[in-house]
Amino acid sequence: MGQLLRWTAATAAPQVEVALTHENVKLIANALGTPPPDVLNEVHGAGRLVAALCGAAKHARAHRDAGVDIVIAQGTEGGGHTGDVGSMVLWPEVIDAVPDTPVLAAGGIGTGRQMAAALAMGAQGVWTGSLWLTVEEAETPPSQMESYLAAGSRDTVRSRAWTGKPARMLRNDWTEAWAAEDTPDPLGMPLQFMVTSDAVARGHRYSEQAKDVMFNPAGQIIGRLNEVRRVKDVIYDLVEECIDTSERLAQLMQDSGS
Amino acid sequence: MGQLLRWTAATAAPQVEVALTHENVKLIANALGTPPPDVLNEVHGAGRLVAALCGAAKHARAHRDAGVDIVIAQGTEGGGHTGDVGSMVLWPEVIDAVPDTPVLAAGGIGTGRQMAAALAMGAQGVWTGSLWLTVEEAETPPSQMESYLAAGSRDTVRSRAWTGKPARMLRNDWTEAWAAEDTPDPLGMPLQFMVTSDAVARGHRYSEQAKDVMFNPAGQIIGRLNEVRRVKDVIYDLVEECIDTSERLAQLMQDSGS
Repeated sequence: MGQLLRWTAATAAPQVEVALTHENVKLIANALGTPPPDVLNEVHGAGRLVAALCGAAKHARAHRDAGVDIVIAQGTEGGGHTGDVGSMVLWPEVIDAVPDTPVLAAGGIGTGRQMAAALAMGAQGVWTGSLWLTVEEAETPPSQMESYLAAGSRDTVRSRAWTGKPARMLRNDWTEAWAAEDTPDPLGMPLQFMVTSDAVARGHRYSEQAKDVMFNPAGQIIGRLNEVRRVKDVIYDLVEECIDTSERLAQLMQDSGS
Repeated sequence: MGQLLRWTAATAAPQVEVALTHENVKLIANALGTPPPDVLNEVHGAGRLVAALCGAAKHARAHRDAGVDIVIAQGTEGGGHTGDVGSMVLWPEVIDAVPDTPVLAAGGIGTGRQMAAALAMGAQGVWTGSLWLTVEEAETPPSQMESYLAAGSRDTVRSRAWTGKPARMLRNDWTEAWAAEDTPDPLGMPLQFMVTSDAVARGHRYSEQAKDVMFNPAGQIIGRLNEVRRVKDVIYDLVEECIDTSERLAQLMQDSGS
C-alpha cells in the first residue's frame, strides 16, 4: 500500500529517481492521468519507456500527445482506479484512437482466454493486476488473502471511499458505511486519502482485526482467483490457454467455412 | 417500447400465444429472470426453443435447471436491464457454469472483433441489441436517433429511473433528475414503471419535444454507432471483421511461435 502515500509531486519524484537507479527497470507506468513532462523527460532521458493507464479514448490521445510510449486501456472490470466503460467496448475504442501507439489491454484478464480475446481485438499485449494478489509470492497479509480468495465477481464495488476517486475494491463494511445515506460523502482526491491513509496503513498492519474494514483493491476477475498459486504456474496456464483459445477460434472458423 | 407494458403474467401470456402462431418464431427469449414453468412448457410444447438472459453465473444455473435451452450472458456494457459484471469476466464465468448449455455472449458487441473475441472465449454465438437501434430499418424516432448517433461510450448510465430495476440507457435530464440528492429515489419494479409508463409512451410519440427526457435504452457500444446503416451492411461487416480477427490471432500465434 506504500505507493498510496506517494501521490504528490514532492514524494513521487524521488520514487522515479530510485526506480531509475535500477537497470532492470525498463518501464515506468503512470496509473492515474498523463505523466507530467518532467517525469516523462527524466524517464526518457534514462533510456526507459513510459506507460500510462486510461479508461477513455480521449485520455489515450492525451497520453500519446504527451509522449507516452505505451497506452494501457483498462476497462471497468479492473481493480483500483478505473473508469466505467467495459473492456469489451473500451479496448477497440482506444486501439483505434491511437493507431500508432502500442496498446496493452487491462481490466478483467485472469486467464488465457481473456488474453487471447485481447490480442484478437488488436491489443499488443495484456496488463494484469488482480491476478497477482493471490500468488504465493504476493505480500498480501493472510486475512486479506482470505477475503480475496472468498470473493466472487459480484463482490467488488467502484467506490470513492478510500482515495476520493472511483476505484474498484472488495465491498465491505467500510465501503458500505461510506455509501450509506446517513453518512458524509467521500471527499475528493487528495483530501479523502488524508482522512483514510492512516486506516490503510493500520489495516495492513493489523489485518486480522481490520478484515472487514480494509482497503482491498481488486478487479472483478477476483471471482476466479480461489486458490493460492505460484507465479510460474499462473504464467504457464495463461500462455497455454491463450494458445488453445487461438486454436479453437481458428478451428471454429474453418468448420464454419466448410 | 410496447414490450415494456407487458410485464405481468396476465399481459405476457397472450404475447407468447401470439408469437407461437407465427411459424417463423423459432426462439422466445426471456430478458429478465428465469421464465416461469407455464411459459417454458407452452413454448417447448410448440416445438420452439427458450432462451434467457443472465448477468451472473447463479442465474445461468437457475435458467438451465428450469429447462432453458440457451443462456445469454450479458455483461454490464449491455443496454436495458443488465448486471454490473463486465463481459470479459462474465462470459467465461457463465460458459464454465453451464458447460452443457449453449451460451450466447452479449454486452458490448458491435463489431466483428468483439464477436471473434466472444467465440474465442467459448461462446456459441453472440446476441446484439444496441447495434440495431441505429439501422435504417429501426423504428427509432428521428430525434431519438440523433441522441443515439451523438452518444459516446461514456454517455450511458445504469439507472432505476424508468423501470425500477437497473437498466443501461443514455444519461439525460430524466436520469439526472432521478439521481439528484434532493429528489425521491426510484421505486422498485413494477411500481416505478407505473409512475413512468405514460412518459415512455408520450416520449416516443412526441420525441422531438421529449428529446432530453426520453427513455433511450442503449449499451456502451452506442459510442461506435455514429451513422445510420442498413442491416445487411452491418451483418456483412460483422462477419468480415470476425474472420479477419480470427486470422490476425492465428498469424500472431504463428509469428510468436517461430
